[in-house]
Amino acid sequence: MYSGKIREILKKKGIKVGGRIIVEKAGRRYTGLLMPRIELGSRNCIVIKLDNGYNVGIDCRNAKVSKSRTPEPLAVLEEEKFELGRVKPELAKVKFKKNKPRVSIITTGGTITSRVDYKTGGVTALMSPEEMLYNIPELADFVSLRMLNPFSIMSESMTHLHWQKLAKVVASELKKSKGVIVTHGTDTLHFTAAALSFMLPDLGKPVVLVGAQRSTDRGSSDGAFNLICGARIALSNMAAVGICMHGTMGDDYCIFTRGTKVRKMHASRRDAFRPINDLPLAKVWPDGKIEKMQKVPARSNSVAKADTAFEPKVALIKSYPGCSPDIIDYYVGKGYRGLVLEATGLGQLPTYGKVSWISSIKHATEKGVLVCGAAETLYGRLNPNVYSEGRMCREAGVLYLQDMLPETAYVKLGWVLGHVKSVEKAKEMMLTDYAGEITKRTLPRTFLI
Amino acid sequence: MYSGKIREILKKKGIKVGGRIIVEKAGRRYTGLLMPRIELGSRNCIVIKLDNGYNVGIDCRNAKVSKSRTPEPLAVLEEEKFELGRVKPELAKVKFKKNKPRVSIITTGGTITSRVDYKTGGVTALMSPEEMLYNIPELADFVSLRMLNPFSIMSESMTHLHWQKLAKVVASELKKSKGVIVTHGTDTLHFTAAALSFMLPDLGKPVVLVGAQRSTDRGSSDGAFNLICGARIALSNMAAVGICMHGTMGDDYCIFTRGTKVRKMHASRRDAFRPINDLPLAKVWPDGKIEKMQKVPARSNSVAKADTAFEPKVALIKSYPGCSPDIIDYYVGKGYRGLVLEATGLGQLPTYGKVSWISSIKHATEKGVLVCGAAETLYGRLNPNVYSEGRMCREAGVLYLQDMLPETAYVKLGWVLGHVKSVEKAKEMMLTDYAGEITKRTLPRTFLI
Repeated sequence: MYSGKIREILKKKGIKVGGRIIVEKAGRRYTGLLMPRIELGSRNCIVIKLDNGYNVGIDCRNAKVSKSRTPEPLAVLEEEKFELGRVKPELAKVKFKKNKPRVSIITTGGTITSRVDYKTGGVTALMSPEEMLYNIPELADFVSLRMLNPFSIMSESMTHLHWQKLAKVVASELKKSKGVIVTHGTDTLHFTAAALSFMLPDLGKPVVLVGAQRSTDRGSSDGAFNLICGARIALSNMAAVGICMHGTMGDDYCIFTRGTKVRKMHASRRDAFRPINDLPLAKVWPDGKIEKMQKVPARSNSVAKADTAFEPKVALIKSYPGCSPDIIDYYVGKGYRGLVLEATGLGQLPTYGKVSWISSIKHATEKGVLVCGAAETLYGRLNPNVYSEGRMCREAGVLYLQDMLPETAYVKLGWVLGHVKSVEKAKEMMLTDYAGEITKRTLPRTFLI
Repeated sequence: MYSGKIREILKKKGIKVGGRIIVEKAGRRYTGLLMPRIELGSRNCIVIKLDNGYNVGIDCRNAKVSKSRTPEPLAVLEEEKFELGRVKPELAKVKFKKNKPRVSIITTGGTITSRVDYKTGGVTALMSPEEMLYNIPELADFVSLRMLNPFSIMSESMTHLHWQKLAKVVASELKKSKGVIVTHGTDTLHFTAAALSFMLPDLGKPVVLVGAQRSTDRGSSDGAFNLICGARIALSNMAAVGICMHGTMGDDYCIFTRGTKVRKMHASRRDAFRPINDLPLAKVWPDGKIEKMQKVPARSNSVAKADTAFEPKVALIKSYPGCSPDIIDYYVGKGYRGLVLEATGLGQLPTYGKVSWISSIKHATEKGVLVCGAAETLYGRLNPNVYSEGRMCREAGVLYLQDMLPETAYVKLGWVLGHVKSVEKAKEMMLTDYAGEITKRTLPRTFLI
């Protein structure tokens, strides 16, 4: 709770935590709900949950604090409820009917199962899986759900150990359900999607990764919409691993995008997950309408097996002007077995002068490290043969990965090196398309969509 | 030249370097001009310049090599000439008229001054500045040019030393001309644009960076079009540093984009340079029409001074699942003064378990290293206050850079630390907008344009 001067002011003004408050400072005016003090936060700082759903901390020195006389913006709340469309005020227990097709939902934490943590004023992954589902009773209309929660973590702290566990749980659930949904934090959702794409070959059924960019306590929360669309995909005929998230800023439709060709391209927008060098596999509407945008393998009788071997000694390195090649030597010295270098343009890396990467790349290659090149531009395809500099890098040992995303390349390299000892065999595997990560031809209309 | 078996085959078939040849292998058929052998290339490899302008090397074992009986595709060449529109077959000397306004062109190498290097079969930065201009006689219609070539380098090998030299030459030329054009390789063009943005405060005149995605010997070359549009910007009323490149795939118009808010987003497309979290400053047509898209400072009498101090001990680090925080310790141990971490989502970095970055960030901060966070998503704005994990990173010492691009943040951090010793002062400068690198509000329509 607040202490010192702030406590005095709040007491004097009759403002309690949860009450509406106005703080005016430096010509700006903040109105919202008073939140509890942040642990470890400054003693002079007051935290307000603004009407837009974000919390702000304001240093109260030289600020005017007063009780808000205007009531909570009910109109806005009503609108938010309308926008959300599917949040019921009370947590009614959902009864799933046994005659509906079964889908497994595996929750792993992240914003989609988050709410405000009143200890810190921030958002944390605390909500129980059941609680998340109570918010979306519409699901009961068309699926019967099995729920599992192998672990709960915000996605930025995930590692390959989580991917391996998750792949095993998904493979097991695929035997029991028509399809599997994985709910997950969005920050590294695309890494996990790539990992499951490689770790679950010949899966025969849909595996749908779903997240939320906004927590459920916000009017603009997108988790429910994504989950309903995701459940539609889980029942569909598409046997693929992909991410199902908002296709546009509005609640229009979701896009289901291949797990190896997708990237979080915006910090906060609901339509942040975009296909890169690829079209979405399909558009999907909450009523079950699905519009396929490319060929996707159909359901089959193949039984998914989790193939999870992974070499964690791989790294992803950005190149930029002035970047010392020491960074390569560093990883080689630490016994890394694979490196993905983000190369500029068609695949160039510094080749001249003191900053030339050539001898470090050669040294790494000689030590048996597999050095790959992926496009820092994200879009487009590497072609090291156009420029002499690219050829020099290739001759020094860089394996160029065509139009594979750097993030996907990192995941694939760990997976490949988890399976084989031979660098030559690993090279061959890196250039073999396992899960749509390399396309033969990039359609021009896949740029910036 | 070719040796061994290939030499024999070529001799037998009567095929000379420069002649048209067909190589058939594994069901594929390659037709094009025979190029000289690549130095250090495989003895079994034959190099062909395909009709699309790219060179391919083909291992001739198990291949069928024959002389092409079809003539050079003249129709295509004609079309290419038409598409190019401005390449004269012979190199006529351009005479600039003294009564036209003067623009300085500073050439630095890169594709825009490149042609095929017959030694390697690749493209190298060999063309003389004059030669480049002979290709674009239209420039003489509306400008009188001064040309300088302080250095020639492919842009992936540039360092801050090149930026510093370039800034000084630009500042000096701004005193003599109405505006300055810098021709430059595209791979790191956006880094140099950011560097010049910070190193040339209050410039009072336009500084236009221009590159080419395709070399002049290719039908789809874009250098001439970009340069003509760039010259129009150099004469305009916009006192800003920016990149002028194709706005679309066609020869429609160029976009002039702020030097701190632009990124190469595609490996090969002519419209690869896109504004991020910003609109272009203007659209420009080769006939001189300019359509401003936002407010830009007008020309003034201020005299540009190159402010080039730069601290090279800065690094740009990507975060990803499983990435060990050792990388931070490594740079701290090497005496680096600043780090830009590419953080996921709203600014998260690994905070839990063995891979937590928190203690390494704290250690770096305690050692006086300025640790900044920029958005790995590229688009959007960091807000570490939404999630507890973001707050933890902020409290450990990460300075969040709003909607600044990671690449721009790297350049700015080097520039800021080149100017001040105090970390507190440096933090303040990092959050001060010097050249449009931080916007107050991001327009929704700036996503993926």
